[in-house]
Amino acid sequence: MKRGKIIVLSGPSGVGKGTVLREVMRNRSDLQFSVSATTRPIRPNEVNGENYWFMDKAQFEQLISDDALLEYVTYADNYYGTPIKPVEEAMDNGIHVVLEIEVQGAMKLFERRDDVISIFIAPPSFEELKRRLLGRGDTAQQIAEKRLRIARWECEAAKKYKYVVVNDDVQRAASEIDAILTAESCRSEYYEMILPEEEM
Amino acid sequence: MKRGKIIVLSGPSGVGKGTVLREVMRNRSDLQFSVSATTRPIRPNEVNGENYWFMDKAQFEQLISDDALLEYVTYADNYYGTPIKPVEEAMDNGIHVVLEIEVQGAMKLFERRDDVISIFIAPPSFEELKRRLLGRGDTAQQIAEKRLRIARWECEAAKKYKYVVVNDDVQRAASEIDAILTAESCRSEYYEMILPEEEM
Repeated sequence: MKRGKIIVLSGPSGVGKGTVLREVMRNRSDLQFSVSATTRPIRPNEVNGENYWFMDKAQFEQLISDDALLEYVTYADNYYGTPIKPVEEAMDNGIHVVLEIEVQGAMKLFERRDDVISIFIAPPSFEELKRRLLGRGDTAQQIAEKRLRIARWECEAAKKYKYVVVNDDVQRAASEIDAILTAESCRSEYYEMILPEEEM
Repeated sequence: MKRGKIIVLSGPSGVGKGTVLREVMRNRSDLQFSVSATTRPIRPNEVNGENYWFMDKAQFEQLISDDALLEYVTYADNYYGTPIKPVEEAMDNGIHVVLEIEVQGAMKLFERRDDVISIFIAPPSFEELKRRLLGRGDTAQQIAEKRLRIARWECEAAKKYKYVVVNDDVQRAASEIDAILTAESCRSEYYEMILPEEEM
């Protein structure tokens, strides 16, 4: 059995990552989401081990000092990170693990590991993303503008990912991600042919 | 329009390259075969510009001295090579050009260009290839053994290609090549997002 791989997926808020990912998962049985750990409080509708692994600051800092996280970031005074152990276990069972993480965490992960498949999901255009972010209408102008500034910074980081998939059509974006996973499994470094020993 | 790419396809005799390639071509309109140039005599059923560009030794050597070939090899006292010009023209029109070339020529091309998508088509096992090569029954033992020695050397070179596609099933092999082409077109170096100039 071929070992699974880490798939890092990022993209600006409003780009439709969730929808595209659900579509990819529908067609492949060899994918699994990674569950992040966080110190932010659990919300009423959330389940520990499903949405996040919820823990206190001391527990999270123990993971940091044990070098047991693939990456972590601090956001609004809370830690968010990816525990290594469940990721490695799934990979050992031939499962690819999808890490849907922020650009900041992804950059840290790229420094640490060069064996990840990194995919940035981009909007058809920045103007389109702007429309989607501002057009929601449920957000104060100031917050929307902050999101837009972050989105701009994120889109500038797209080139640091190995692949960029433009989400102008969910089906097409999902099939491109599917093709990337198939192509990566065909890379020659994973290939081994047993050649006969004897002289011919 | 995105520029087309050079796709180098190699694989041992008897692996079924032709069948797999025809299946890939059936599903994509952005692919075109490269026609090689050769100094070997034209055969009765062959068409100039279709099977090969047939030319004399002086013409071929002119191409060599003009640096107008992507790669060339000498085989049984004849030259075989890939003229650059039609390849570049097709690429300018967004067409991927498939070069079905021998391992020896491919190695020379890899030294010259690092922007090619290289795919090695491998048999399910060396034993299976042996059965196919020896089992044809139309070949003298000595020739069959020579083919097998060449095939062994070629399979050892598989790792020098970027991708290896195992032809245990024509449909699956064709869909893997299709996925490789799609994935390669998603590589971030081909991506450019126009970000707004103004301060946000």
